[in-house]
Amino acid sequence: LSKNLALRLIVAAVGIPSLILICYLNGIFLLVFSILLAGLAGFELASMFRKKGYHVNVPFSIILPVILILAAYFRLPVINILAISFFLISSIIILRYSSKADIQINELLNDFFANLLPVFYIGLLGIFIIYLGAVPDQGGRLLIYVFLIVWAADTAAYFGGKALGRHKLTISISPNKTWEGFYFAFIGALIAAIVSRLLFLEMGWLKIVVITLVACFFGQIGDLLESGLKRHCGVKDSSAILPGHGGIFDRFDSFFFAVPVVYLFNLYWH
Amino acid sequence: LSKNLALRLIVAAVGIPSLILICYLNGIFLLVFSILLAGLAGFELASMFRKKGYHVNVPFSIILPVILILAAYFRLPVINILAISFFLISSIIILRYSSKADIQINELLNDFFANLLPVFYIGLLGIFIIYLGAVPDQGGRLLIYVFLIVWAADTAAYFGGKALGRHKLTISISPNKTWEGFYFAFIGALIAAIVSRLLFLEMGWLKIVVITLVACFFGQIGDLLESGLKRHCGVKDSSAILPGHGGIFDRFDSFFFAVPVVYLFNLYWH
Repeated sequence: LSKNLALRLIVAAVGIPSLILICYLNGIFLLVFSILLAGLAGFELASMFRKKGYHVNVPFSIILPVILILAAYFRLPVINILAISFFLISSIIILRYSSKADIQINELLNDFFANLLPVFYIGLLGIFIIYLGAVPDQGGRLLIYVFLIVWAADTAAYFGGKALGRHKLTISISPNKTWEGFYFAFIGALIAAIVSRLLFLEMGWLKIVVITLVACFFGQIGDLLESGLKRHCGVKDSSAILPGHGGIFDRFDSFFFAVPVVYLFNLYWH
Repeated sequence: LSKNLALRLIVAAVGIPSLILICYLNGIFLLVFSILLAGLAGFELASMFRKKGYHVNVPFSIILPVILILAAYFRLPVINILAISFFLISSIIILRYSSKADIQINELLNDFFANLLPVFYIGLLGIFIIYLGAVPDQGGRLLIYVFLIVWAADTAAYFGGKALGRHKLTISISPNKTWEGFYFAFIGALIAAIVSRLLFLEMGWLKIVVITLVACFFGQIGDLLESGLKRHCGVKDSSAILPGHGGIFDRFDSFFFAVPVVYLFNLYWH
């Protein structure tokens, strides 16, 4: 047992029950968790871009996603916050260029994007954690189900890919990932979904199978997108805050994508 | 009178009364106008990025902003459409990289951004045209007021800058713009606001002055941002659809920024 794997297991042994408890308690506990998650992931994303040399406003990257989470919790119109964020970020981009002749215009797009993404990725997707938790009757249980399918998918992909992986999935983004691991993720997620359905979740069998497969697909898209952004910025982990696991954003990349999928399917499928 | 200026004046002589009529009629007329505006601006923005070599999905750049406008009109939750758009665009970005070894990772961020921006700029800001038009009692009149202050600001900035402009505003984005033109824009906008207030708009004097100044400021940020994006992509106009005026996006860049400002101030300032 390597030291790294031991650390991973200890963090998981503390973290997984804590997260399940937070989802179960819901309300203010989920709000505090979501604020920490969005603020830290926004900070990590901004830091990644700064390492690449982009001019990112770090306070905005933390505060704007947090304000979005708070707005979602207090049922304020988040779309207004998104528009205000767009204005603030546009202004700082333009102000950087005002009256200066020595700034290259090619930087503009990268700087603009690097400032927008913490809000329009972490913030936009993060608010759905609040929305899903607020689903009547079983919001907390739906969140626990999402965590379980995401963890099961990750684990199945890792071990399945290690044992049987032969065909590369995305060589230029994440060279160790394989199509075999990609398919194993769905098997892992389905097993976790069946367990959730038998133990605590009230949902039709067809609905839970479809939601799980779609959430698992987009969870893996989220995982690859985060890997792509990291590779673009030349960093291996989004931070080192979780011993053995890397950063918050590394651990929750699939979760950010899976939560809105489950929320939207649950909302529109009656 | 040059041929270009004559064309400009003819388009303005037809276009300005038409737009005022559309705002006055409101409802379905405003919806159709907003759909055309968002679809065309989305198309122009995508085309600009394609000229720069980015891999942009043009249909998505047209359809997703249009769906946002429709969702706003029918009072559906636009935030859900934004999340779905984010997922669709993330997926096409990742699919482009799947299994291919010969794609440079540096393209990923630019491609991602170039696909997101039509939705999260044109679409996000465009829905506020619908929201402002739907303000009780004087929604249409508020839109007419926004058009008047934006046109007055543009015109005052142009002639004021031409007559007195000496200090460059943003050399690297738009070398002809000056600080003098920037200040003249506020004077032009204020005159248009006073005329609007005297003729048709019900609003306290302090409120209209503050809203006008803030909307004029962000309108100019919107103008410069669009110029910056054009310069980044190496194009002079966003398209040639309006004879003498360039593209739709060129003509409405300030409008996209001014409308949400007026909507938000009007919403929160009682």
